[in-house]
Amino acid sequence: MIVEIVTTGTELLLGQITNTNAPYLACQMNKLGFNVLYQSTVGDNRERMMQVITTALSRADIVITSGGLGPTQGDITKEICAQAFNLKLYLHEPSNNRIKCFFSNRHAPMPESNLRQAMVPEGSVILINERGTAPGIILEKDNKVIINLPGPPHELEYMFEHSVIPYLQKRYGSQGTIVSRVLHTYGIGESALEEKIADLITTQTNPTIALLARPGEVIIRLTAKGSNESIAKQLIDELQLTIIPRISEYIFGFDDNNMETTVGQDLLNKKLSLALAESCTGGLITSRLTDIPGSSNYLCGSIVCYSNEVKIQHIGVDRDIIREHGAVSQETAIAMATGIRQKFKTSLGVGVTGIAGPGGATSEKPVGLVYIAIDGPSGHRCYKHQFIGHRTEIKFRASQATLDMIRHYVHGLTLQEDI
Amino acid sequence: MIVEIVTTGTELLLGQITNTNAPYLACQMNKLGFNVLYQSTVGDNRERMMQVITTALSRADIVITSGGLGPTQGDITKEICAQAFNLKLYLHEPSNNRIKCFFSNRHAPMPESNLRQAMVPEGSVILINERGTAPGIILEKDNKVIINLPGPPHELEYMFEHSVIPYLQKRYGSQGTIVSRVLHTYGIGESALEEKIADLITTQTNPTIALLARPGEVIIRLTAKGSNESIAKQLIDELQLTIIPRISEYIFGFDDNNMETTVGQDLLNKKLSLALAESCTGGLITSRLTDIPGSSNYLCGSIVCYSNEVKIQHIGVDRDIIREHGAVSQETAIAMATGIRQKFKTSLGVGVTGIAGPGGATSEKPVGLVYIAIDGPSGHRCYKHQFIGHRTEIKFRASQATLDMIRHYVHGLTLQEDI
Repeated sequence: MIVEIVTTGTELLLGQITNTNAPYLACQMNKLGFNVLYQSTVGDNRERMMQVITTALSRADIVITSGGLGPTQGDITKEICAQAFNLKLYLHEPSNNRIKCFFSNRHAPMPESNLRQAMVPEGSVILINERGTAPGIILEKDNKVIINLPGPPHELEYMFEHSVIPYLQKRYGSQGTIVSRVLHTYGIGESALEEKIADLITTQTNPTIALLARPGEVIIRLTAKGSNESIAKQLIDELQLTIIPRISEYIFGFDDNNMETTVGQDLLNKKLSLALAESCTGGLITSRLTDIPGSSNYLCGSIVCYSNEVKIQHIGVDRDIIREHGAVSQETAIAMATGIRQKFKTSLGVGVTGIAGPGGATSEKPVGLVYIAIDGPSGHRCYKHQFIGHRTEIKFRASQATLDMIRHYVHGLTLQEDI
Repeated sequence: MIVEIVTTGTELLLGQITNTNAPYLACQMNKLGFNVLYQSTVGDNRERMMQVITTALSRADIVITSGGLGPTQGDITKEICAQAFNLKLYLHEPSNNRIKCFFSNRHAPMPESNLRQAMVPEGSVILINERGTAPGIILEKDNKVIINLPGPPHELEYMFEHSVIPYLQKRYGSQGTIVSRVLHTYGIGESALEEKIADLITTQTNPTIALLARPGEVIIRLTAKGSNESIAKQLIDELQLTIIPRISEYIFGFDDNNMETTVGQDLLNKKLSLALAESCTGGLITSRLTDIPGSSNYLCGSIVCYSNEVKIQHIGVDRDIIREHGAVSQETAIAMATGIRQKFKTSLGVGVTGIAGPGGATSEKPVGLVYIAIDGPSGHRCYKHQFIGHRTEIKFRASQATLDMIRHYVHGLTLQEDI
């Protein structure tokens, strides 16, 4: 089955937002064994959208659109697609009621224009939007299918997983399957990583191996094709057994597991509690850790100490340490880690201090210099890092290095850059 | 002049990498006054690429491709485009020499396949690649133009700025210019906002008005076309003067200014300092505030209080308040705000407590319930919110509401949901 993805919206066309729906849908459809052969983007213009939809229908069996289901006059996708199949719109009562409830639950008056969202093409399948007001639509005609999904990614993704996949499986049966697995690595560059598995990359065709540098990590993607999921998975498992021993110290997670999930699981497994004193990272590490459900089981709390007074009064850093070595120093980082551990009575304490920039640098302490310390049952350690990038990149890289340090400490391993 | 951007590559089609070339090229071409009306993506397949290029040539004056200029068998873009214009390829000696030099400078043997990169269509303009080996190509025929650019973003962007812009300016002269401005709003839904300016949306053609719901905000984008930048800007300024009085209480920023920039600027202007006690937001608000350079001038620090003990011991919340009203309550939020303000000796103190989920809810206190309190020179206030979404969405929405509350408090305004 050939698939075309049509993303709509002037803001995509103007390049003002990045198109994340197209790669999401492409990835998902491929996993299900469908062939995504074309992607198109068009603005909210009737004539041009009709042309793009008509072209898509001429070369694909399934056309998936994203965007243009909202209540405003610029939202025309549903209408154009209905027109392409020569179908009339009618008011879908259940959708109408859902939208009314959505507003009354919020004690907000429903603008009349929201009714537009409850107008659907005759004979279409209606997909309930659990995350918003615009329902999704599936239209069928002469063996061609159009699937209209809402533009906001969290609405689109939820609807795809909960409504579109079951529909596709029922309508088309199994298409064979493509399975991907992601190995997340930290602490090694893309080309150094490639060298370690170069022989596998050139000889492997199923699964394939792809390397990709991402912020704060390099990922390895293994992609296998099989007549069913378990066959594809087995191919990946076998290849993984060859890869992992070569790079095990760099791998911190698989698939959707990121650094904060991994660290959380490690802390939970070893029944350890954690508190952080964050200076240059400004709460980012704690915020990442608290993105994980259940993090209150190991994360006790943190102090973001942007001023020296907070470091001294609330974390217990000795005023003389800051005076003598500066707020950005190994000594202060260690005092922050031991101080917060004591104050919050946790198994582990972490201290992070550095210069996120663009201001605040000196000739000896450049932007990107960050000291990261940990204190715990096996004593304290401190690591010196020099990160590059803008302020938010430095914050993120420092947060990634901190989480990796916690992970290694908890595993009882030693990092190489120990100072 | 109508433009279509055609990005090529199987990894784009599979959704394995995000397409950054399309938004980059769209943004640049728009700035230069060209109309980007279509974007397409196709894999490295001769038949399908030819079809996409032919369709693009039928509806656009200028077709810009990215990718597929490399040395491998899968790199077919240049060949297909030459074929579309019925042009033969020949070995371009200067390009051949450049590629040879590229390898000899690196003391690396040149794979024979790299010669493919020096084959160019007869009569084409050759764009030197300062960042890699594949030259760019411009083909012209019957008033149609195809521009082939390399896929790696740093090669493409350099070539676009240094070779394509001068070519376009010489070939087409000035196209006038398109200028956009974004008005960020908070506290009003997309359709309610549209109602307030519906008359303008339907009557305006230059500038155009577009509304877009984004996480934690609704933006209004004004886009004007003019023969030069200052004329376009003036059109936007005039329209803005009509729009702003109708919705001024919801607007928190323009263009790249987000909520944290605005709040930071407000605090700086009024010489106020800030400390936060964050429970359910887990440090996210502080992290967002510290993303802004110079935030140490107003942000003193924060305590992330994931445990009740931290709330009691380090922020000074009365144990009885938590026992009587619970950690998620108006009383605790206010005690957190006043407590952190006292402890950190700041002008303003903020307390945020709620249930980010998925666990922790009761029948009376559902997931998404968040109390946000502020204490300062004009006394304390507390707001009750009920957010929807996943854990990280609830965290983000609570952070956005908190920043907006700080903004209103600082402005001396009253919010409507005051409890």
